[in-house]
Amino acid sequence: MGSYCHRRYVSRLFQNFVKIQPKAKSDNDLGLSCNSHKLMLYNDIVAQSHAGGFHLLPLGVRAFEKLVKLVDEEMQAIGGQKISMTTLCPESLWRQSGRLAAAGAELFSIQDRHKNNYCLSPTHEELVTKLVASMPQISYKYLPIRLYQITRKFRDEMAPRYGLLRGREFEMKDMYTFDASEEKALETYNLVCQAYNNIFDRIGVRYVKVSGATGIIGGNLSHEYHYLSDVGQDSILLCDRCDVHMNKELAAENGNLPSKCQLPATQCELLERNGIEVGHTFYLGTKYSSVFKATYQNQEKIMKEYSMGCFGLGMTRILQASVEILSTETSIRWPHLIAPHQLYIIPKKDGTRADEYLARAEEISDAFTQRSHLQGEVIIDDRMSMTIGRRQVDADRLGYPYIVVVGVKALENPALYEVIDTNKGETSFINYEQLMSLADKIKTI
Amino acid sequence: MGSYCHRRYVSRLFQNFVKIQPKAKSDNDLGLSCNSHKLMLYNDIVAQSHAGGFHLLPLGVRAFEKLVKLVDEEMQAIGGQKISMTTLCPESLWRQSGRLAAAGAELFSIQDRHKNNYCLSPTHEELVTKLVASMPQISYKYLPIRLYQITRKFRDEMAPRYGLLRGREFEMKDMYTFDASEEKALETYNLVCQAYNNIFDRIGVRYVKVSGATGIIGGNLSHEYHYLSDVGQDSILLCDRCDVHMNKELAAENGNLPSKCQLPATQCELLERNGIEVGHTFYLGTKYSSVFKATYQNQEKIMKEYSMGCFGLGMTRILQASVEILSTETSIRWPHLIAPHQLYIIPKKDGTRADEYLARAEEISDAFTQRSHLQGEVIIDDRMSMTIGRRQVDADRLGYPYIVVVGVKALENPALYEVIDTNKGETSFINYEQLMSLADKIKTI
Repeated sequence: MGSYCHRRYVSRLFQNFVKIQPKAKSDNDLGLSCNSHKLMLYNDIVAQSHAGGFHLLPLGVRAFEKLVKLVDEEMQAIGGQKISMTTLCPESLWRQSGRLAAAGAELFSIQDRHKNNYCLSPTHEELVTKLVASMPQISYKYLPIRLYQITRKFRDEMAPRYGLLRGREFEMKDMYTFDASEEKALETYNLVCQAYNNIFDRIGVRYVKVSGATGIIGGNLSHEYHYLSDVGQDSILLCDRCDVHMNKELAAENGNLPSKCQLPATQCELLERNGIEVGHTFYLGTKYSSVFKATYQNQEKIMKEYSMGCFGLGMTRILQASVEILSTETSIRWPHLIAPHQLYIIPKKDGTRADEYLARAEEISDAFTQRSHLQGEVIIDDRMSMTIGRRQVDADRLGYPYIVVVGVKALENPALYEVIDTNKGETSFINYEQLMSLADKIKTI
Repeated sequence: MGSYCHRRYVSRLFQNFVKIQPKAKSDNDLGLSCNSHKLMLYNDIVAQSHAGGFHLLPLGVRAFEKLVKLVDEEMQAIGGQKISMTTLCPESLWRQSGRLAAAGAELFSIQDRHKNNYCLSPTHEELVTKLVASMPQISYKYLPIRLYQITRKFRDEMAPRYGLLRGREFEMKDMYTFDASEEKALETYNLVCQAYNNIFDRIGVRYVKVSGATGIIGGNLSHEYHYLSDVGQDSILLCDRCDVHMNKELAAENGNLPSKCQLPATQCELLERNGIEVGHTFYLGTKYSSVFKATYQNQEKIMKEYSMGCFGLGMTRILQASVEILSTETSIRWPHLIAPHQLYIIPKKDGTRADEYLARAEEISDAFTQRSHLQGEVIIDDRMSMTIGRRQVDADRLGYPYIVVVGVKALENPALYEVIDTNKGETSFINYEQLMSLADKIKTI
């Protein structure tokens, strides 16, 4: 970074502190039927563009890009190679795979000036299989192929709702894998599931993994990852004591809907909770490779169809669902690692010494950002006409993990700084060395 | 990164070394009428999805993401705040701004299941102005507002050609600025132009800046940034001695088309070259803020319309245009900073000592990647059944800046490594310390 390391000030943020309270219209009128949607709109994390379409604003982009980095790390740790496929997909490919009719009105259709029909891809099985099929004579030696992308997807939801939880444009991570056999594909499948566990563990919001429905994607093995929340649209049955988790609807379809756990020694009641689906994994077999003639050359130089898997993560959905689960009714709380900025510094307003408070805040900011893991992570609230208390309310509402107040004691000798750990709700007064030692311990991505 | 730092091997790359030569069809049949398009297709940097639509493959994504980082740095250095706006834009907004008719058939139109009309945004003046207008009572104290995004854009080109140079889906960086007055907006304008100069200087491909046509975007001040190349679609007149550069078409429209430079002391001939437009800047005035009632509160508490600017960079176009200009007919050359990987290590094939050569290559790779600026920048060509020479041809063709050969001398005492500086075409034998010192000097982003 070097010279590209700048002090950041609240007054320079594209954020409107005028409209901190809900507007005249009631929440229901605005369709703000969930808390995270309301919090993210009111705090300028997102803004509505049209029904089911939301812009990410600066703080939203920062959180999103951290999530992208986290997912990149875990995908690349299992040999994932990042690509970026086109949004437009010739409709003929969806006809060929048999998905066109099944997708129905949820698929956005578009015609170009030459009257060719395309769809806006909600998922890329057709395009990626055709891409891999276009590579001639790939030897079994170069398998598995694990491709993924993090791109915008489109789905013409009948009734979009809950902001990023169920929009018509959304960011998705989709991985597609190509193996030599079912056995190898299942090894890949388990490896990707392990990477998903790592991702969700690092985000730190409790998730459950359940057997999934294969639905329109196809294949015969599937798992869903859910966050548990009242606004979720799936029903999850669970008992942590017996480590039982299942999708109620799917269990019912399979004639396998228990009311109690099945372990002989226990007779726990199963809890029912709503789940927000944040990830989905599928073993696809040769469903797509057979349609698009995607083959590799085996040890006997015979061309064989790939055994495929596909693996989705709802990136913008994870972003909002985390906020939904962690926040209070009035204050955003982020998963620590993806909070837009880690440290928020408030210098005291003071008629005569305001400049000194601000200068001290800037010194601390510089000291923090000299640590490479804190570059870009520090923001100074330079709205010097406002009281500390008033600005602290804003900082808390926005969920900055650490608030550092440069108050009266900061200009005394020895200097003491007030630090609020927003997630724990704890306040302490610490000296400069302790402050720097706190900074060193903050985990970032 | 820590544990997320892995050795990278050529055998694990999604890249097909079988098809290194042009396919049966002639280049013309494939519409590959420019060299960079051919090189990027044959070397699996991109792959065609449909007419005018290209996937970025792993090496393409790496180069692209480096370019994104470079542009992020320069945009944020001038106070740019990153956002991400929706792709879909209600058609009514384009009607309101008067651009719907002007855009004509180049605008992709789409209808949702409720019969609402949208377009796939080629540029976001309407949406961003509406967004800023939705922020009530922004005080002059919080100006300027400088928002930018790097997102996929859409244009229904009648005849897409030259791959990423003129596609129907492309990645663009677009910045939109909001100032209190024309004077302030022109300060912003000059600042963004300076940031563009920095970006193009750091990429290192020669560019020229000329007065631009305002066209459909509107406004009354504009500049274009061009790369000079035979495949460019604009005509640029230039004389470096007199520092004269102009867009020929625009100069002719303005009745201002010289054949010689105008400085009295010189009488140089103006050269004519083709230009690829890679950037465009516009001062917009209140064209959009007046339509969408985007206002701020001035010192006298009166609501005033913003003076706006917009600033585009063709991100995927810059990527390919650089390759077009720097490459030879058969070998890709990248701008140093955005080459997908900096170092390519080839261990000698050998019946009995192959394991030792590979182990040494891995040691060197580990030593390189312990340097934080080289994480992810090193790749080992582990195709151990192939000669050094054969693999060196691949590495040169793909334009890796430095090729390190772990050959016979590497297992002697003292060990010597052959290093090829691909851009300079120079070969040298150096010892381990010199190799590490070379690594330390490589600039990365």
